[in-house]
Amino acid sequence: MTQLESARAGKLTPEMKLIAENERVDAGVLLDRIAAGRVVIPKNVNRDQRSPRGIGEGLRVKVNANIGTSADFPDLEPELEKLQAALETGADAVMDLSTGGDIVAIRKEILARCPVQVGTVPIYEAAVSIIEEKGSVVDMTEDDLFACIERQAREGVDFITVHCGVTRESISRLQKEGRVTDVVSRGGAFLTCWMLANETENPLYTRYDDLLEIAREHDVTLSLGDGLRPGSIADATDRAQVQELIILGELVQRAREAGVQAMVEGPGHVPLDQIAANITLQKRLCDGAPFYVLGPLVTDVAPGYDHITSAIGGAVAAMAGADFLCYVTPTEHLGLPTTADVREGVIAARIAGHAADIVKGVPGAAEWDREMSQARKALDWKRQMELAIDPVKARVLREKRTTTSEEACSMCSSYCAMKVVEEYLDSRKNAKQGIL
Amino acid sequence: MTQLESARAGKLTPEMKLIAENERVDAGVLLDRIAAGRVVIPKNVNRDQRSPRGIGEGLRVKVNANIGTSADFPDLEPELEKLQAALETGADAVMDLSTGGDIVAIRKEILARCPVQVGTVPIYEAAVSIIEEKGSVVDMTEDDLFACIERQAREGVDFITVHCGVTRESISRLQKEGRVTDVVSRGGAFLTCWMLANETENPLYTRYDDLLEIAREHDVTLSLGDGLRPGSIADATDRAQVQELIILGELVQRAREAGVQAMVEGPGHVPLDQIAANITLQKRLCDGAPFYVLGPLVTDVAPGYDHITSAIGGAVAAMAGADFLCYVTPTEHLGLPTTADVREGVIAARIAGHAADIVKGVPGAAEWDREMSQARKALDWKRQMELAIDPVKARVLREKRTTTSEEACSMCSSYCAMKVVEEYLDSRKNAKQGIL
Repeated sequence: MTQLESARAGKLTPEMKLIAENERVDAGVLLDRIAAGRVVIPKNVNRDQRSPRGIGEGLRVKVNANIGTSADFPDLEPELEKLQAALETGADAVMDLSTGGDIVAIRKEILARCPVQVGTVPIYEAAVSIIEEKGSVVDMTEDDLFACIERQAREGVDFITVHCGVTRESISRLQKEGRVTDVVSRGGAFLTCWMLANETENPLYTRYDDLLEIAREHDVTLSLGDGLRPGSIADATDRAQVQELIILGELVQRAREAGVQAMVEGPGHVPLDQIAANITLQKRLCDGAPFYVLGPLVTDVAPGYDHITSAIGGAVAAMAGADFLCYVTPTEHLGLPTTADVREGVIAARIAGHAADIVKGVPGAAEWDREMSQARKALDWKRQMELAIDPVKARVLREKRTTTSEEACSMCSSYCAMKVVEEYLDSRKNAKQGIL
Repeated sequence: MTQLESARAGKLTPEMKLIAENERVDAGVLLDRIAAGRVVIPKNVNRDQRSPRGIGEGLRVKVNANIGTSADFPDLEPELEKLQAALETGADAVMDLSTGGDIVAIRKEILARCPVQVGTVPIYEAAVSIIEEKGSVVDMTEDDLFACIERQAREGVDFITVHCGVTRESISRLQKEGRVTDVVSRGGAFLTCWMLANETENPLYTRYDDLLEIAREHDVTLSLGDGLRPGSIADATDRAQVQELIILGELVQRAREAGVQAMVEGPGHVPLDQIAANITLQKRLCDGAPFYVLGPLVTDVAPGYDHITSAIGGAVAAMAGADFLCYVTPTEHLGLPTTADVREGVIAARIAGHAADIVKGVPGAAEWDREMSQARKALDWKRQMELAIDPVKARVLREKRTTTSEEACSMCSSYCAMKVVEEYLDSRKNAKQGIL
């Protein structure tokens, strides 16, 4: 049984119990949300995933880190370092997006070492092996693609991005739209080419029942990909994007009917004032399915800083109801990220998620901030470092800008406001005068 | 005449003409907004400021970089380097917050070298010299403070932060509130101590007319400081903060009556869902005065990343109407920033401001993003680098993660979505088939 089927049968799985405990939510409430498809627990039955996480309504916003090789950087070792960096900085999920080197061996290592959920985009492997073998993705057969998906499901991949909504209908809308950046999703691009060259429909759409069968057998969560997501501010929330989302909403419904867990991927590049509308639309069209956003980036002009442009968009999206943030690193739009970039990317996305958790009343979120501020007020540096979202970086920066005063920091030194005012304000407080 | 008085007299100053041209706004509209006090042009009559900027309604969101020494880092040279870094990365204003070394000499150098507006917090100099001389800020006289303000005005400082709203009334509200972090503003802390120790009212409030006289004579823009701004998420938008804001609103009115330009400073640390309300409140209570926000930081737990926590808050604030963002660097809460931190801080704040400019329809903002995306689609790397908000960093990252393909980047290498799809999608487009 999938987690969804268990929930519907009223059966609490060990994963549900653990998540309810970790997130301090009532197990019965969690069970109801999973049964309704509003929370998913990506966990393949074939893999021993030591630290399962739930994604969706009422839970802490989760963060995914994309790692994986490219043709230019095909080696395994750096990717294992990135995996370690992602885990150390608190990623809740890791996607292996490898397209270079020995893709199968790399995935195997990542699956073996990663205690949290692992996702993939199976068409990457399918497309790359066909391109290497025959020179073009258009020579891929439908069976090539489904065989690859099934193999990955057997290996234990917990969730897969499948661009089922890139259909003849949505591509037609894209062509009528006249976009600035057309298709920016790799998977979406492979499928679009394949469909146009072969003059046929997307097999992930036509054979969606086959996909559901594989997903159900191994309890692979479908992450319904937005292959036509906007790749620029100018293209945001256009007819092609919304057409694809409508189709994805229908596919969420079919997944649920088949007992398969499903979430939906979203943009992308979105101007600040359209973000909340995007979340509302997705939640409505997809009947409350967990929403996994890839950014959104609130401007196109900041290569080198897209961890920041996406932290802004991610925070606003998460406040509006997005459940799962795909990190973006400083190297986005410029190259494959380094290990240091992975650290920056995970922390930036976690900041965005946490800022939303505070205002959504997620258990423990506001308390964390309160504790930090109490430590700050007490000038308790040891505690501040322990509570920092990245204790390593906080310590490095404090040591680098060392101070002569053990109490204050080198910005204000002896003129620290909290230190200066304490004596006067507190003596008054203690005297309970209450007025001056 | 101050810029405000000129505008009221219907007289376009050279600064107004330049700003109208640079910002592509109608000069008459700009003049009306200045006359109404909804736009300010901080420019001291005693200083040759080569690049004046307007702050307020309908204009591009501006960014301020705080530089200046502390007791732990008292040297001039690093601060001049930071000035250079702030200007190179596009700061619209610089505040010299020096509290260490030869404060007067440092300010003189910064004023001489800085082509954009320079702000200060005069009470820093007044307090530090009294502390050095007599051991405690409480020994400062009212005349000490006013003499310092007048001296700085004569020297050419363009705007000054004056915490006029830290009154017996607002401190009393603070004491009743029971905050987590009490007072986190240095100027606010100095004044609070002084008032409590001397059992008297804030001279910046009681002698506000004297302050207005100095400001009017030299056309120094008053930046009405929020000495009681919240320093933690838990304290945001509390009664003490709002009490001070009410008082600042009254003082904006009096400044306008005296022909003095005024803007209002705002928080601080604010949870995401309270930011828009803060802007609405300030704009209403202060009759549309330009709003200068110090953050806001959307979480307390991220020392080392407060350029990001503040970029999130700053973007949301600016979208809601904040006009002027004070940058925050990665070293906030840990120490005095380095030159590298200044760069990061300015760019993060500029990203926040620009994300808001896009949605506010500021002339040129969305066009910048469109051009970047067109360059991306064309895989025109030269143009992408030129258009990057930080061309230096974008180039470094691209070179570091170099690629075998001149066209694509090393993330996707030959599988670049835009490259992959172009051939198929464009051939269809060119054939004007419109459907598949």
